[in-house]
Amino acid sequence: MGKTHYCPDIVHYAWDNSLEPIINVSSGDTVIYEFRDAGDRQIVPGSTNEDIRNYDWDRSYPLNGPVHIKGAEPGDTLEIEILDLHTKGWGWTGVMPGFGLLNDEFTEAFLKVFEFGNDEFIEFREDIHIPVEPFLGIMGVAPAEPGKISSAPPDKHGSNMDIKHLTKGTRLLLPVLVPGALFSAGDGHAVQGDGEVCLTAVECPLYGALKFSLLKGKTIPGPQFITPPGSLTRRTESKGYYVTTGIGKDLVQCSKDALLAMIDHIVQEYNMSRYDAYVLCSLTLDLKISEIVDPNFVVSAYLPLNIFK
Amino acid sequence: MGKTHYCPDIVHYAWDNSLEPIINVSSGDTVIYEFRDAGDRQIVPGSTNEDIRNYDWDRSYPLNGPVHIKGAEPGDTLEIEILDLHTKGWGWTGVMPGFGLLNDEFTEAFLKVFEFGNDEFIEFREDIHIPVEPFLGIMGVAPAEPGKISSAPPDKHGSNMDIKHLTKGTRLLLPVLVPGALFSAGDGHAVQGDGEVCLTAVECPLYGALKFSLLKGKTIPGPQFITPPGSLTRRTESKGYYVTTGIGKDLVQCSKDALLAMIDHIVQEYNMSRYDAYVLCSLTLDLKISEIVDPNFVVSAYLPLNIFK
Repeated sequence: MGKTHYCPDIVHYAWDNSLEPIINVSSGDTVIYEFRDAGDRQIVPGSTNEDIRNYDWDRSYPLNGPVHIKGAEPGDTLEIEILDLHTKGWGWTGVMPGFGLLNDEFTEAFLKVFEFGNDEFIEFREDIHIPVEPFLGIMGVAPAEPGKISSAPPDKHGSNMDIKHLTKGTRLLLPVLVPGALFSAGDGHAVQGDGEVCLTAVECPLYGALKFSLLKGKTIPGPQFITPPGSLTRRTESKGYYVTTGIGKDLVQCSKDALLAMIDHIVQEYNMSRYDAYVLCSLTLDLKISEIVDPNFVVSAYLPLNIFK
Repeated sequence: MGKTHYCPDIVHYAWDNSLEPIINVSSGDTVIYEFRDAGDRQIVPGSTNEDIRNYDWDRSYPLNGPVHIKGAEPGDTLEIEILDLHTKGWGWTGVMPGFGLLNDEFTEAFLKVFEFGNDEFIEFREDIHIPVEPFLGIMGVAPAEPGKISSAPPDKHGSNMDIKHLTKGTRLLLPVLVPGALFSAGDGHAVQGDGEVCLTAVECPLYGALKFSLLKGKTIPGPQFITPPGSLTRRTESKGYYVTTGIGKDLVQCSKDALLAMIDHIVQEYNMSRYDAYVLCSLTLDLKISEIVDPNFVVSAYLPLNIFK
């Protein structure tokens, strides 16, 4: 039976394998966390588009850690079981100029703040309710390379993976690259679609618990994970999906085309501005590679229909 | 109440908007079909790797059609409701040299023929059972461009989309590009993962029924579809998923890396040859774009665990 630790609110912004651990744990131990949001409290309820224009990227992404795992050595695998994650009842999303899959079209700063109170659903509009499914956008171990390494890109060591299924009950596997593994995490998300197309999820502070297990001698080439039994879409599947496609020789262009077709569909069918539709897609639309072997590729974009009341 | 028609076994191999319709239907009508397999009976129970080596690509893909839809004009949308699809109890899959996502590594002709009798599951190995979920790899309307156009690439007019969720109950929408729409279909699949990574699904003859509805004045930029209520993965989700990732700046390379990590995982955990593991991935592994906006992209490859008995 492992111990339970409380992780203090001590954060770093870049990865760096020379950082001093803030706590030391053993395989089997659980750590209780409170995570700040990705913007490190720059955006709060009451913020406006102006706060997005003045956004200081140097304060992205505050990560709690590093946590040192006793006995972890390069070549081992660290398992992180997501025992529990909760929001604090609010979050924000928006368009950051210069970023996102459609940054050519969506060039203006655009912010939406949601106060939803509990973890049931986010009222995007009176008639559009998005179920809350909290996960951490960033979990990772210290990279093998020395020096400061940005926390923005995902990579072999984890970092900003933004994988929506790293929710409660999932077990993430990360390759240990330095002694002690030096695990850190942050970038709480209340909900996101596969793709995170506009760059942001519902960004939010989270609290919860992670359990660490060391798999000695198991070596993996990069992040892997195991989901719990049952549907990955149990909260969104009850009315089926409306799906658009993008077809061509480049998967990024296919994704853009499928997304643009969906934005057009949402704007027409649900009487919504294009910015709102773009952001709604970032929160709910799932991008799948339907086929990657024929002379053209197909990316399909799945919009759950049960968000519309 | 529409009429019911029977589509004769008359096929064409390339798209061509000058082909004579083989039947004429009205909006609301249903057509009963028998489809040949993608290889046009070159592979049958008893075939060997030698038959893959001698495969004649000019006989891919026999398409039943064209079906003329009365009153369809460019700018309209044709809805095709998949009322029912069944296999004939057998199918084949394999590696065709020069094709597939990992054609650099998998260079040999490799064939597997399955005789499964009903539409419950395919016994890939005594202890690996894959649920059958039949769909048509190719549905399409005649392109606007004159002349013969290959049926291998998917495109705006549909064709070889290989979208696994075009199963019973789904409604496909295609843009009408020529008068009468001139719908054709074929390339039956008994089961396939999102990505169809080795190039082939379980290729098989199918029979079933499609219902046509003309949406006058509705214009769409390419194929779209609406799935029925409920989980898209109801037959495979009961034990959760093992998931690998590919992370980097190119989505094709990400997909290759995730697939290679999964092949390694399957080979180690389930004592399987690399060719079998590659083919198993083509039939069951789902490729999702987890994020497409951070400085590196993430493709995640989801293997359902309930196929392992």
